[in-house]
Amino acid sequence: MTVSASGRVGLWLVGARGSVATTAVCGLAALRAGLAPATGCVTERLPGAVLPAWDDIVVGGHDLVTTSYEKRAEHLSRAGVIPHHLLAPVVPALRAADAEVRDGYHPTTHRGPQALAVRRLAADLETFRFKHELERVVVVNVASTEPPVPHVPAFESWSALSAALDDPALSVLPPSSVAACAALTAGCSYVDFTPSTGVAIPALDELARHNGVPYAGRDGKTGETLLRTALAPMFTDRALRVLSWSGTNLLGGGDGATLADPASAASKLRSKSDGLATLLGGPVSAPLHIDNVPDLGEQKIAWDHVTFEGFLGARMSLQFTWTGLDSALAAPLVLDLTRLLAAAHASGISGVVPELGFFFKDPLGSEEHRFDHQSATLTAWAQTLGGAR
Amino acid sequence: MTVSASGRVGLWLVGARGSVATTAVCGLAALRAGLAPATGCVTERLPGAVLPAWDDIVVGGHDLVTTSYEKRAEHLSRAGVIPHHLLAPVVPALRAADAEVRDGYHPTTHRGPQALAVRRLAADLETFRFKHELERVVVVNVASTEPPVPHVPAFESWSALSAALDDPALSVLPPSSVAACAALTAGCSYVDFTPSTGVAIPALDELARHNGVPYAGRDGKTGETLLRTALAPMFTDRALRVLSWSGTNLLGGGDGATLADPASAASKLRSKSDGLATLLGGPVSAPLHIDNVPDLGEQKIAWDHVTFEGFLGARMSLQFTWTGLDSALAAPLVLDLTRLLAAAHASGISGVVPELGFFFKDPLGSEEHRFDHQSATLTAWAQTLGGAR
Amino acid sequence: MTVSASGRVGLWLVGARGSVATTAVCGLAALRAGLAPATGCVTERLPGAVLPAWDDIVVGGHDLVTTSYEKRAEHLSRAGVIPHHLLAPVVPALRAADAEVRDGYHPTTHRGPQALAVRRLAADLETFRFKHELERVVVVNVASTEPPVPHVPAFESWSALSAALDDPALSVLPPSSVAACAALTAGCSYVDFTPSTGVAIPALDELARHNGVPYAGRDGKTGETLLRTALAPMFTDRALRVLSWSGTNLLGGGDGATLADPASAASKLRSKSDGLATLLGGPVSAPLHIDNVPDLGEQKIAWDHVTFEGFLGARMSLQFTWTGLDSALAAPLVLDLTRLLAAAHASGISGVVPELGFFFKDPLGSEEHRFDHQSATLTAWAQTLGGAR
Amino acid sequence: MTVSASGRVGLWLVGARGSVATTAVCGLAALRAGLAPATGCVTERLPGAVLPAWDDIVVGGHDLVTTSYEKRAEHLSRAGVIPHHLLAPVVPALRAADAEVRDGYHPTTHRGPQALAVRRLAADLETFRFKHELERVVVVNVASTEPPVPHVPAFESWSALSAALDDPALSVLPPSSVAACAALTAGCSYVDFTPSTGVAIPALDELARHNGVPYAGRDGKTGETLLRTALAPMFTDRALRVLSWSGTNLLGGGDGATLADPASAASKLRSKSDGLATLLGGPVSAPLHIDNVPDLGEQKIAWDHVTFEGFLGARMSLQFTWTGLDSALAAPLVLDLTRLLAAAHASGISGVVPELGFFFKDPLGSEEHRFDHQSATLTAWAQTLGGAR
Ligand SMILES: NC(=O)c1ccc[n+]([C@@H]2O[C@H](COP(=O)([O-])OP(=O)(O)OC[C@H]3O[C@@H](n4cnc5c(N)ncnc54)[C@H](O)[C@@H]3O)[C@@H](O)[C@H]2O)c1
Ligand SMILES: NC(=O)c1ccc[n+]([C@@H]2O[C@H](COP(=O)([O-])OP(=O)(O)OC[C@H]3O[C@@H](n4cnc5c(N)ncnc54)[C@H](O)[C@@H]3O)[C@@H](O)[C@H]2O)c1
Ligand SMILES: NC(=O)c1ccc[n+]([C@@H]2O[C@H](COP(=O)([O-])OP(=O)(O)OC[C@H]3O[C@@H](n4cnc5c(N)ncnc54)[C@H](O)[C@@H]3O)[C@@H](O)[C@H]2O)c1
Ligand SMILES: NC(=O)c1ccc[n+]([C@@H]2O[C@H](COP(=O)([O-])OP(=O)(O)OC[C@H]3O[C@@H](n4cnc5c(N)ncnc54)[C@H](O)[C@@H]3O)[C@@H](O)[C@H]2O)c1
Ligand code: NA
Ligand code: NA
Repeated sequence: MTVSASGRVGLWLVGARGSVATTAVCGLAALRAGLAPATGCVTERLPGAVLPAWDDIVVGGHDLVTTSYEKRAEHLSRAGVIPHHLLAPVVPALRAADAEVRDGYHPTTHRGPQALAVRRLAADLETFRFKHELERVVVVNVASTEPPVPHVPAFESWSALSAALDDPALSVLPPSSVAACAALTAGCSYVDFTPSTGVAIPALDELARHNGVPYAGRDGKTGETLLRTALAPMFTDRALRVLSWSGTNLLGGGDGATLADPASAASKLRSKSDGLATLLGGPVSAPLHIDNVPDLGEQKIAWDHVTFEGFLGARMSLQFTWTGLDSALAAPLVLDLTRLLAAAHASGISGVVPELGFFFKDPLGSEEHRFDHQSATLTAWAQTLGGAR
Repeated sequence: MTVSASGRVGLWLVGARGSVATTAVCGLAALRAGLAPATGCVTERLPGAVLPAWDDIVVGGHDLVTTSYEKRAEHLSRAGVIPHHLLAPVVPALRAADAEVRDGYHPTTHRGPQALAVRRLAADLETFRFKHELERVVVVNVASTEPPVPHVPAFESWSALSAALDDPALSVLPPSSVAACAALTAGCSYVDFTPSTGVAIPALDELARHNGVPYAGRDGKTGETLLRTALAPMFTDRALRVLSWSGTNLLGGGDGATLADPASAASKLRSKSDGLATLLGGPVSAPLHIDNVPDLGEQKIAWDHVTFEGFLGARMSLQFTWTGLDSALAAPLVLDLTRLLAAAHASGISGVVPELGFFFKDPLGSEEHRFDHQSATLTAWAQTLGGAR
Repeated sequence: MTVSASGRVGLWLVGARGSVATTAVCGLAALRAGLAPATGCVTERLPGAVLPAWDDIVVGGHDLVTTSYEKRAEHLSRAGVIPHHLLAPVVPALRAADAEVRDGYHPTTHRGPQALAVRRLAADLETFRFKHELERVVVVNVASTEPPVPHVPAFESWSALSAALDDPALSVLPPSSVAACAALTAGCSYVDFTPSTGVAIPALDELARHNGVPYAGRDGKTGETLLRTALAPMFTDRALRVLSWSGTNLLGGGDGATLADPASAASKLRSKSDGLATLLGGPVSAPLHIDNVPDLGEQKIAWDHVTFEGFLGARMSLQFTWTGLDSALAAPLVLDLTRLLAAAHASGISGVVPELGFFFKDPLGSEEHRFDHQSATLTAWAQTLGGAR
Repeated sequence: MTVSASGRVGLWLVGARGSVATTAVCGLAALRAGLAPATGCVTERLPGAVLPAWDDIVVGGHDLVTTSYEKRAEHLSRAGVIPHHLLAPVVPALRAADAEVRDGYHPTTHRGPQALAVRRLAADLETFRFKHELERVVVVNVASTEPPVPHVPAFESWSALSAALDDPALSVLPPSSVAACAALTAGCSYVDFTPSTGVAIPALDELARHNGVPYAGRDGKTGETLLRTALAPMFTDRALRVLSWSGTNLLGGGDGATLADPASAASKLRSKSDGLATLLGGPVSAPLHIDNVPDLGEQKIAWDHVTFEGFLGARMSLQFTWTGLDSALAAPLVLDLTRLLAAAHASGISGVVPELGFFFKDPLGSEEHRFDHQSATLTAWAQTLGGAR
């Protein structure tokens, strides 16, 4: 990676005090202090990309809770995500980050038309950019997963949405989309790291293109789906016929608690399942579960069982068990996406960035789910960044 | 795949009565009769390649045993490799194949200089080609795995080897290399589907290039290694640091019995291990075992356990269990390689074909072990075949 | 085992043409012909028990479908449950069994008060006993699993139930209980091999004791639960604290199709879960799934993941994958239960037989789920059989 | 458990500074301070046994290294065995223990006849007992596993061994047996927690009985073997025929490094394997490996794959993966054995105690390997302790 010297970049985390966000904040501090290698950071292995340096990234964000970063970091340390010896050195960075967290939007506490919420959040972003003299800001949504929302006509165009936002009797957008709308309004790039609706509606795509900001999503690919997209091409390239691909995910933590609600789990299950049929060239039996197992804490266990048919109908199987620390897998990708979106913005790219599908379970702007193809695409694309600066 | 109409091709199997060979012979008959789809045949998914049709392939081979194909096929049916209902329809094809099996070479039964053995085997190949009016013959070694042999000076050049072969007091070549030497001498393409020495010595490479025949190898990639080469790039592309990759293979059948001999297993373990360090960019703890578990019959069970480190040193793991029917995985690749080598020969290619690394644990002529890169290379290369005809 | 010479015994299968029943019928024929060892038959290892010989057992049953046993057996052979070479020799026995299958009861086809259905089924049993000069008949319910039914006041006593059965406007009993009621009415022992309601209502317990017939149940323990009841005591005896025990079951076949209906699965999940808390001395996180994966055919795959805490709070885990052929596990137990219930009846035992808890996920008349204790209890109890004859 | 008030007991650890010993020392301190529950301590669940209280146990031991307990405990904390918050409170206890560790015996540093070594070690034990006014001392061998030693005639009787020990030219006993001999000479009970030779020779059995001290062993059963002895009876009680039982163990830590030496691993593999044939009523294919995977630290991963046959020859399988923290599993058993041997000694028991087979892979004085039977035996036997005091 070639690191650009020019300009500071803001990383604004929606869900700023969650596990993923806290791990990203601690990790960035550790990287800047040279206390940890950048293991898991994909941008470190991309040749020729001109990207912001760790030292040039400033963090802030929105959340609904006020638990201090120090408390969250201690919890993550007990859970095995952050090593104990890193806690003390990052305290100053955590305090600085604490000072940059503002109240997020939630429908139950908000009064007035949604346009007001958008303006308030956008103002927070502009203040942050101004205060820290940032060249640009990347907003990354790592808030709790929301249930899927029905598609309404107001989603279809910016003019329709705009009108609906002004109507104090309506509340058409879920919080993730309010956050996305605020980001785009303030001229910030936006990343949907969750499966929530966020930016994925035509009206916001229009807004992004109009305002000249790039966006990417959706739902960080860090565990079972990562493996599926690496393994499925092996079956198809070898002309083996997958008959069933069953999966069970056990997880604890905040995400486990959220996904114990079937409505929220629905978003996640959808983004996990959609890709499989695409990968395998057609639908297969694919029962899939997400279970909340609180004692697992930050650990996620995924078990997949695949049956397949070979020559002359021979029946075979593959099963795997993945034991991951979810936030440790997600946080470096959040940092990677910050760098890449900032560079894309600097290069004049706007609208959806399909080349970032590599990072997501449900890649916006792309139907390519194969890990190897996504990886090659990302590598090639990253090399083109920087030229337009 | 575009199928070429021109010319019949011979498939000569060394180890003609083994499990892999028998499955290939039965399967070819079933494909020709339209009784089974070509599941597992990679050549069926290669766009634009001009390859021999199933109908144009005639089989023969060398073996040391005389058990009839019907008996072997019944055994493989009980073991779940060949469906019971296919047995009756393929009997005529099996009898035809039986008639084309000749005595293989073995040092304990051979008398005279090794050159004599080479000439006898080469004569069998030429007779086969002449009798069936074949345009070309591909020799595929699927005989029992041999122990590794020490490298001797006679391996260095064809002139040195030639002299050694003429010396009745010497027996420098292992049987697999005698078979390879005979193939090349007779102008036949050669494939090492086993980890044995075979064609992989400089003298035989010289001979292949001199005689204008292509060859490929080594050790068909059908199970644990296939998965490793599909999964390892996922770790490196995601910048995750693999700490250990342990493996245990349980297998029965003829191959299980052979590999119960530690000397023979040594070849196999070497071809399985070599690639891992290359894939991961350096050595890791990688204990590896092959155990003979007779009751598994034709089944192979592989268990791999991988530990890896992510962001901030987080410790995670992946384990998988693969339950394969080895011969069902290998046989379609034998047919694929026959088609591809025949087409390469027709295209005027000679010497090692590195583009076929996709098929092998220990790819001759290439250091590329990543499944995705191998797959892309194969697809691109196959499209070039046929032009030069 | 000491085999009693006295008296022939009927085995009446409710769900006579299902997978479990067909495997039992084929297997019994093979055992009688000396073509297969009695692997999986627990009664063969019980010392000192006086039990009916295989030769003394005659089979018949009720079902709703008419597919011949030969067809069902061929299907089970393709699925790996019955070896191909056994099919031909058992054909005469299968035809004899075919002749003894009568129409079962189903609410959608029945007209009139349920008492009529009970009398018709009981008459079938009496005819069977008379025709074959049987000393006694054991009815085993291996029909499709039913959804759980609400408990109604009529279940509380035989007089209340009796009145309800006579009322043509009511249909209080599910089919399994109609079958149980018929069995007890006809003086036959009864076994609930399914999780359906069957005999497990007070009114039928009263009837059983009144008519002097023994019964046992519920839900044959053949896979995941078998393992759980063998493993859970290891944790408690070693004073290790289980924190979570998650399970996923993948199955195909008729049972898989039935359990794809959440209502039917509810019975199964309940009998699977109830025991775990008892085994572990309290509730733990225990998400549990049953998925229909049609391509698995008669195979059942169960994956369990257990987290536990040891000394000083150390966190550890155990996971297992069980690959069973369900009918092959269940059928020998059906034969065992026939022998044991017949002997219990001969010994004058009536009402629930808690000593048979060894065989069941949800043991009627007992709270003991620990496999080892159940095994010791069964062994001791079986030795007492035969004395009273 | 009923706790006896009378008398203090010494626990003398051979290998006092190893992982198991250090965990036992820390854990005992935590239990005494009420900082941790006695999870994993079997004696806490034994009803009616009269056993020493935690407060009555004083620790000391022999080792070859001098690393302080504080350092070892910190290492074990990083490895997940001891929680970080327990470290500070146990420091005083660790320092007290440090003061009671003496130099162990090793052939390369010892000069003179082995009798001298025995006398020196015995004197250390007597000094410890006298200094702390202990009623009795239990010596537990938790030193590094030794290679198996050939059986020599001097092992046959105490008079023969005694003579050999006096001969300065001979060195017949391995270090574990020197330690055992010293313990028995000093009138201390002895436990072999390792697979080393230790007390398991006729001459030392004679000495133990002569001196009126009890002993038990061999090789703590804490992982794969624990599971095997819990699961194997399930197969036999259900009359299922096990065909193969393959195992792979991955471990790091000191034990992993020691067992990387094939000679030392031989002892371990032997104690692991012996039981399986006994459990299954005959030999099966049972390949077994122990691999050193340093990055696993104190973790042990065991994978077992079992194939078995059911009714009509149906083929099925079970596999499990165990992820244990070995020292956390072993340490509470070391404390349990201290209590139980002390109580046995107080009850006048001498020689081998077969009722303690529950704790060991290779139970001395018993052929019973079934976990359930061992558990029942232990429970019954423990109730008899205390009467003779
Ligand atoms: N590997 C991974 O960890 C991974 C992968 C893919 C996606 N994700 C997604 O990332 C998200 C975060 O995961 P986590 O483990 O950090 O969850 P978490 O529960 O620890 O954190 C979520 C945070 O979002 C905050 N929040 C909720 N609603 C908000 C709102 N309207 N505005 C601002 N903040 C709000 C919560 O207060 C909380 O602090 C989840 O949606 C998860 O599905 C995570
Ligand atoms: N998936 C797979 O099955 C797979 C994958 C990679 C490599 N291979 C290799 O393919 C080979 C064949 O496997 P298999 O399962 O068919 O084994 P097999 O034991 O069933 O068959 C081997 C055959 O080779 C014959 N043979 C031995 N020495 C010979 C000689 N000198 N000349 C001629 N014939 C000889 C034997 O008589 C036997 O019929 C093995 O070396 C195996 O390692 C197989
Ligand atoms: N290991 C095991 O196979 C196992 C273990 C425990 C319980 N069971 C239970 O055993 C039962 C049978 O399993 P299976 O795999 O043979 O299922 P199956 O679907 O193959 O067979 C069920 C049979 O019951 C018949 N049936 C349905 N309703 C009926 C009625 N009212 N009267 C008479 N017959 C009726 C069906 O027509 C079918 O032939 C299931 O309830 C299953 O849950 C099986
Ligand atoms: N679950 C378990 O941890 C478990 C189970 C069964 C058996 N064991 C056995 O317990 C023993 C200890 O395991 P560990 O993990 O603590 O190993 P470790 O390597 O951490 O400790 C062994 C200690 O023994 C000391 N030692 C070596 N030779 C000695 C001698 N001659 N005299 C005195 N001390 C000596 C070493 O210096 C070291 O401190 C091993 O033999 C192991 O096989 C452990
Ligand atoms: Na997409
Ligand atoms: Na190579």
